Amino acid sequence: MRLWDTTNALHDTILKFTVGEDYLLDMQLIRYDCQASIAHARTLAKIDILSVEELNAIEAALQEIIQQVEAGTFTIRPEQEDMHTAIEEYLTQKLGDTGKKIHTGRSRNDQVLAALRLFYKDHLQHIQEQLTALLQALDRFAQKHSDVPLPGYTHTRKAMPYSVGQWTRAFADAMKDNQRLLATVMEWIDQSPLGSGAGFGVPLPLDREFTARELGFSRVQWNPLYVQNSRGKFEALILHAFTQIALDLNRLASDLIFFTQPELGFFELPGNFVTGSSIMPHKQNPDVLELMRAYAHRLVAAQLEVQMLVSNLISGYHRDYQLTKKPVLEGFAVVEQLLEVSRLLFQHLRVNAAACQQAMTDDLFATHKVYELVQQGIPFRDAYRQVAEAVRGKKQEKE
Amino acid sequence: MRLWDTTNALHDTILKFTVGEDYLLDMQLIRYDCQASIAHARTLAKIDILSVEELNAIEAALQEIIQQVEAGTFTIRPEQEDMHTAIEEYLTQKLGDTGKKIHTGRSRNDQVLAALRLFYKDHLQHIQEQLTALLQALDRFAQKHSDVPLPGYTHTRKAMPYSVGQWTRAFADAMKDNQRLLATVMEWIDQSPLGSGAGFGVPLPLDREFTARELGFSRVQWNPLYVQNSRGKFEALILHAFTQIALDLNRLASDLIFFTQPELGFFELPGNFVTGSSIMPHKQNPDVLELMRAYAHRLVAAQLEVQMLVSNLISGYHRDYQLTKKPVLEGFAVVEQLLEVSRLLFQHLRVNAAACQQAMTDDLFATHKVYELVQQGIPFRDAYRQVAEAVRGKKQEKE
Amino acid sequence: MRLWDTTNALHDTILKFTVGEDYLLDMQLIRYDCQASIAHARTLAKIDILSVEELNAIEAALQEIIQQVEAGTFTIRPEQEDMHTAIEEYLTQKLGDTGKKIHTGRSRNDQVLAALRLFYKDHLQHIQEQLTALLQALDRFAQKHSDVPLPGYTHTRKAMPYSVGQWTRAFADAMKDNQRLLATVMEWIDQSPLGSGAGFGVPLPLDREFTARELGFSRVQWNPLYVQNSRGKFEALILHAFTQIALDLNRLASDLIFFTQPELGFFELPGNFVTGSSIMPHKQNPDVLELMRAYAHRLVAAQLEVQMLVSNLISGYHRDYQLTKKPVLEGFAVVEQLLEVSRLLFQHLRVNAAACQQAMTDDLFATHKVYELVQQGIPFRDAYRQVAEAVRGKKQEKE
Amino acid sequence: MRLWDTTNALHDTILKFTVGEDYLLDMQLIRYDCQASIAHARTLAKIDILSVEELNAIEAALQEIIQQVEAGTFTIRPEQEDMHTAIEEYLTQKLGDTGKKIHTGRSRNDQVLAALRLFYKDHLQHIQEQLTALLQALDRFAQKHSDVPLPGYTHTRKAMPYSVGQWTRAFADAMKDNQRLLATVMEWIDQSPLGSGAGFGVPLPLDREFTARELGFSRVQWNPLYVQNSRGKFEALILHAFTQIALDLNRLASDLIFFTQPELGFFELPGNFVTGSSIMPHKQNPDVLELMRAYAHRLVAAQLEVQMLVSNLISGYHRDYQLTKKPVLEGFAVVEQLLEVSRLLFQHLRVNAAACQQAMTDDLFATHKVYELVQQGIPFRDAYRQVAEAVRGKKQEKE
Repeated sequence: MRLWDTTNALHDTILKFTVGEDYLLDMQLIRYDCQASIAHARTLAKIDILSVEELNAIEAALQEIIQQVEAGTFTIRPEQEDMHTAIEEYLTQKLGDTGKKIHTGRSRNDQVLAALRLFYKDHLQHIQEQLTALLQALDRFAQKHSDVPLPGYTHTRKAMPYSVGQWTRAFADAMKDNQRLLATVMEWIDQSPLGSGAGFGVPLPLDREFTARELGFSRVQWNPLYVQNSRGKFEALILHAFTQIALDLNRLASDLIFFTQPELGFFELPGNFVTGSSIMPHKQNPDVLELMRAYAHRLVAAQLEVQMLVSNLISGYHRDYQLTKKPVLEGFAVVEQLLEVSRLLFQHLRVNAAACQQAMTDDLFATHKVYELVQQGIPFRDAYRQVAEAVRGKKQEKE
Repeated sequence: MRLWDTTNALHDTILKFTVGEDYLLDMQLIRYDCQASIAHARTLAKIDILSVEELNAIEAALQEIIQQVEAGTFTIRPEQEDMHTAIEEYLTQKLGDTGKKIHTGRSRNDQVLAALRLFYKDHLQHIQEQLTALLQALDRFAQKHSDVPLPGYTHTRKAMPYSVGQWTRAFADAMKDNQRLLATVMEWIDQSPLGSGAGFGVPLPLDREFTARELGFSRVQWNPLYVQNSRGKFEALILHAFTQIALDLNRLASDLIFFTQPELGFFELPGNFVTGSSIMPHKQNPDVLELMRAYAHRLVAAQLEVQMLVSNLISGYHRDYQLTKKPVLEGFAVVEQLLEVSRLLFQHLRVNAAACQQAMTDDLFATHKVYELVQQGIPFRDAYRQVAEAVRGKKQEKE
Repeated sequence: MRLWDTTNALHDTILKFTVGEDYLLDMQLIRYDCQASIAHARTLAKIDILSVEELNAIEAALQEIIQQVEAGTFTIRPEQEDMHTAIEEYLTQKLGDTGKKIHTGRSRNDQVLAALRLFYKDHLQHIQEQLTALLQALDRFAQKHSDVPLPGYTHTRKAMPYSVGQWTRAFADAMKDNQRLLATVMEWIDQSPLGSGAGFGVPLPLDREFTARELGFSRVQWNPLYVQNSRGKFEALILHAFTQIALDLNRLASDLIFFTQPELGFFELPGNFVTGSSIMPHKQNPDVLELMRAYAHRLVAAQLEVQMLVSNLISGYHRDYQLTKKPVLEGFAVVEQLLEVSRLLFQHLRVNAAACQQAMTDDLFATHKVYELVQQGIPFRDAYRQVAEAVRGKKQEKE
Repeated sequence: MRLWDTTNALHDTILKFTVGEDYLLDMQLIRYDCQASIAHARTLAKIDILSVEELNAIEAALQEIIQQVEAGTFTIRPEQEDMHTAIEEYLTQKLGDTGKKIHTGRSRNDQVLAALRLFYKDHLQHIQEQLTALLQALDRFAQKHSDVPLPGYTHTRKAMPYSVGQWTRAFADAMKDNQRLLATVMEWIDQSPLGSGAGFGVPLPLDREFTARELGFSRVQWNPLYVQNSRGKFEALILHAFTQIALDLNRLASDLIFFTQPELGFFELPGNFVTGSSIMPHKQNPDVLELMRAYAHRLVAAQLEVQMLVSNLISGYHRDYQLTKKPVLEGFAVVEQLLEVSRLLFQHLRVNAAACQQAMTDDLFATHKVYELVQQGIPFRDAYRQVAEAVRGKKQEKE
């Protein structure tokens, strides 16, 4: 029985279709829904909708659910539709009339946003820590190999010389900018939705600031309609920040796939990082790098899916919003795994200094020759053309 | 132990990362992998790589796997990485040296494509049948309500009159065009990849046409590199065809959400198709239509994900391709569910003829008045302006 | 003065915003709008809305516009909004009342679709011819270099041997599949929209089949609402077909950027195909290949833009549709340029057979060694492991 | 002659293809390129690459270009390829050897980034001001109509009561969050790229902090490779911020299209904001709102295009990056126009208070009835079911 059920049974096919995977996805969120429910119950107690005894009973029962979730013994049944029904049903079965009071002053619309935002805050915090750990690994790697020269490429062609240290720090600096962006993402997310009901407030004198403080939100999102309209909006920003991280790692992985080619051999993956072929016995494949590269596209697609889902719709909740849950939750899982693997990678990646050194061929220094002429007073463009002719001459000689 | 394992154990985190959900997704494909393996074994027997006894033993064992899959008793373990390893391991454990021969003349690269294409063909056939069933439901609905008038809207404003029958047939005609497109999709897919190995052929005289016939493919995809390069390409076309279907249903659902508004009330969903609110007791919400509308975006995102994944890469397999599996398999599931729900919808959707009739207000017939003047010989643009002024006059009177 | 102007002047900023670039884009379509207008006038004459004299006058005036367009002397002014107003104004200024009759029995909604579809048909035909020309260039190139060996790569690592001929033919086969798809695209497009008005028909006995025949359409798109609903739908399919072509060329360009690296040198671009650097005098950059690779993304984005624009909207025209024009017209220009450049490329691309030969190292033949053992009766998986160990041994020796 | 030209003439078709629209787009940037060139010249003078006289001559000539650009008399010719060549050619023709020195210590790679970022900073500043102006207009509108009641909708169905003031402030709050995000975007952009050359530094002791100060950048982007790798990365963030603004306006426009329907009539567009139909004389269409809704999709597609273009590529410049210019420059133009039109809209939008009041039907207050029962001590879920049954009863009575 769903929260809104009165008499009509929903057609089986329609139930299955509308529930979709939601009851499964909610298993990742239910812990946060219980937390938010505790804060909500306390808010209700403050205005005497719940007595102290009722509050205590509800808090105890919600803690039980959290423990069962952690123990893996709590399940949401498909016909319950979502965690919200599962929680209210549990409370009502256990506490009778007291359980029936938990939904006073809220809607599933603000309830799910509270659970999602608590999940987001928790995981964004974790991702910031992962970025810090990755930065440490990059820093150690950069220091260790700072003097190893590396050919710089433009257009996938040798351009000018630089070093393994500089290459590594380019990614470190990108990650620092990503950290700045994540801080802004956190600022957006860190607004309490509870008390906004279905988008038009609740006819009760709820102390929304109290609820926000109880849950650790740094401010209340006051406008109830904006609470609803920010569904999808906030998620798009989260996913955008993730695409920024993932596309930097996509670049990093592309570099490493290129640099670890046997034809170049500047870097090497350790033996327990490479995979083989089912048919070709000699293969040592960088599958780990290829998947690091590939996952960026899943995140870009997820960002897009969320933005499309909420477009061309009028204000206020629509069931379409339900489909934003999956790309966002998957997005978190993907980015957390990418950051873990990247950090691990830089702890084990090997540099082949000899191969790097050997690759520092003359052409990489053509620009330096131009600047020697410039230092002698020749205008840059003339110096450039002079060296260009010399290079071409040498090339033709060879041919 | 993976097929390519020799000595190095893969780092646990890397294994987990590279396998991802693949071993789970493969449960949808393994039946087809077994079918393809039987055809491949017969091809090997034709050139005496397998004896008749070996072939029979392999066929029997593969049939066992299929039965276990259908009975729900076969599982692919994460450390097996994929169905290909699971199958070869089963055969080798059961048949010893005979099992070790099954991978002769193939690579996982052509093997997975064979399984995927057999899956695609099966399900595309099913989708064509679903479209035919939907067309029948649309036709019945159109006939039943062909005479009920309906206000035509442009710019979400009343425009000109038409009928429920014409409205319904607009979607039927779109679905007929979709069927034409699906036929072309099927033509692309219906090429046998087996025998192309890892993209560069196999040094064995395999009778590729024999294998194709055994599996019901209408032709061989001869160029081995094209076999590999069509990974993602074919999937993008499949998903595009699905977005065409889903965006037509998105339009249909948008119309119905609009037409079933109490303010208009032209159509009505039956009671067991609508859902309620957890807070507002009066609500009758068209969640089923909203999700019909929403799923189109998942398919558009899936199409995009596949096209991005395979871009900017050189020819030949990359592990990136693995990530194409999920959006495609999910795409099939989504479109099959959408078609089932749409058909059901038209079997139960109600038309409120009285509300339609009442909505046929004067403004809808303004264009007809223009044409009455045109029939009297007044040039169209003059007639248009004359009626426009009359309409404006009447409007001002009211104000 | 716009066609719909009666008294209210539109606010300047709103006019500028709503017109956008439309009046410029229409310069590509106006020729087709005139053609369609001629056919429409003949249809009107058939039912005596126009007299023979009026028809002749209108045809002559429309031919004048076509000539002025070709001579570059016709312009659409921003305040005219679009070609439809420009045409009607020209006719009315020239022919008085006769000009005011041209819009009888049509709406800009079916009028613009007619012009677009005639444009599409013309250009799709051209693209098919370009594909045929590209196939000829590929075929000549494949024949010329059919015996030159080429290392096959998987995971950007050497895999197995194949040849320049096989590599080339992989792309030829892809283009043949693209031609099949384009034929289906043409089938969709080849439906006459004229006579459907604003999506709800026109209260006149127009002979829609006659109009279709006059314009060379092979059938009438009968359902007027489907005519409107196919806006965006048809364009998405066109753009999808273009992404299929462009992503194949993206793969081709990626291969060539890789193969023309000085480190490999399998292929070479002629001197007048490469570009240089403003700072590094030695550079020979494959910008042409990089842009061939890059344009695929513009087409994927265009496809997406069109699909998003028409989603979540009810049936019937919305001004949103106007924004589909630009991505589609740009899409045609992009794909036509890509095909021209690709063909030119294969007429000038050089193969460095010596470099190819030199790259045919032992590891490429490891799989062949496995098959020698298989021929001796060793089960494949055992043979595979035996060769794998040998390769590993040799590798360790070197280290 | 391009900057890198030495002897080979580039094939005409290849030149046309590689230049594309770049020389036209650069007309929007050339002013900023000249500014950056002045700062660069001063930096060169500081290390005596340029004498004071040379510096003065160069500055004067660059100011001339700026004046000609503003006067509309400067053009970049297609065969010049881009503004960089046009500028250097102008300087060299005017100043001889002095002009040939301007490219000392830079590459087009850091030069174009400098011009782009100066453009971005200027326009981002303007957009922040536009947002502030929009917020003022929203605030005035909200105050003026703060007491007018408005039906709140969920699922496009009447839900609960709120007010025009609350509705308006929901968008104001969204725009405030967008302003926060834009501040972070500005922080990312506000890094000076000059002195990083082609991504690997320049063999000259350039004072990069001096250049940054001269141009008003608040810091130097020190790592040269990160400068290159941030191409596309920064642009994606800019475009993402724009999609956030545009999707909020998409929601706003969707609301207004809905609320201005004659069937509801809560809001009204003034007569000089609506457009008509070419065929239907009674139509008053909200094209302005439809285009406000539609442009969001162009921005989402632009964001996507940029992210795809730079994916799966190794570090360092590729010509693919050139294609990022157009979606970004168009993105700025779109968002600036959207903000101008939105502000104007709220200065002229009318509220029909009577229609709003009339729409405040009983069903909107069903939730309030639940809360009256809750206040009497009935548990929420019981109160909910009680009201639900009463509503259903009343509904059945009517039928």
